[in-house]
Amino acid sequence: MNKIEHLGIAVKDLKAANEIYTKLLGYQPYKTEGVTSEGVNTSFFKCGESKVELLEATNPDSPIAKFIEKRGEGIHHVAFSVDNIETEMKRLEKEGFVLLNQEPKRGADNKLVAFLHPKSSNGVLVELCQDIVE
Amino acid sequence: MNKIEHLGIAVKDLKAANEIYTKLLGYQPYKTEGVTSEGVNTSFFKCGESKVELLEATNPDSPIAKFIEKRGEGIHHVAFSVDNIETEMKRLEKEGFVLLNQEPKRGADNKLVAFLHPKSSNGVLVELCQDIVE
Repeated sequence: MNKIEHLGIAVKDLKAANEIYTKLLGYQPYKTEGVTSEGVNTSFFKCGESKVELLEATNPDSPIAKFIEKRGEGIHHVAFSVDNIETEMKRLEKEGFVLLNQEPKRGADNKLVAFLHPKSSNGVLVELCQDIVE
Repeated sequence: MNKIEHLGIAVKDLKAANEIYTKLLGYQPYKTEGVTSEGVNTSFFKCGESKVELLEATNPDSPIAKFIEKRGEGIHHVAFSVDNIETEMKRLEKEGFVLLNQEPKRGADNKLVAFLHPKSSNGVLVELCQDIVE
């Protein structure tokens, strides 16, 4: 784990949240992106070597919609940057962490991603991210 | 806001959580510290330019005990590094954010800190941190 790649925050209204986080951080998001497979619209703010990702659900079955229904808006996950996602997934599974996807999948911001179940990491939804080099 | 200074994770048992996060991150915490005024024991893991802070309550009135009682273990707050905490507190208050403390207070890891109420930042408890230079 090289760094915190980003912090994912579940919000009800991306446009309104963009305004709030622009005020908070003092600058605007550098991009917005939809991830159809996850049912989310996202925006990204740079913050040092990390990013803040805001996530809005695009349909009621989206994991973000379910999270907000259960717990309200707030921090949804933390993503750590890794050099080799498959090696890290194998290592973590051996260490007893529960993988939510067995193969890396394509996430926002040109990344291969995998998630660890919160039950094996003290209630924290952990994402692993590897840059896609094309 | 220069960077994510740390991510605070509320845990029930600091010793057990240290073992889990040592496995997750692949290295041990660089320090543990009690903050009597907040009713917490903490441990810190470096992660790039940021840190992961684990927080365990030392008494039932601790904000961490109340958080876990209400929501279970998980991500409790995100801390952003600022150059001048008083300037930032004034700026954010003018922008409509609600400060939880009107004066900076002494936090863990040799920092002056202030918190923003989650209701003004989409359910996210935001901490501002300024290094104490002595």
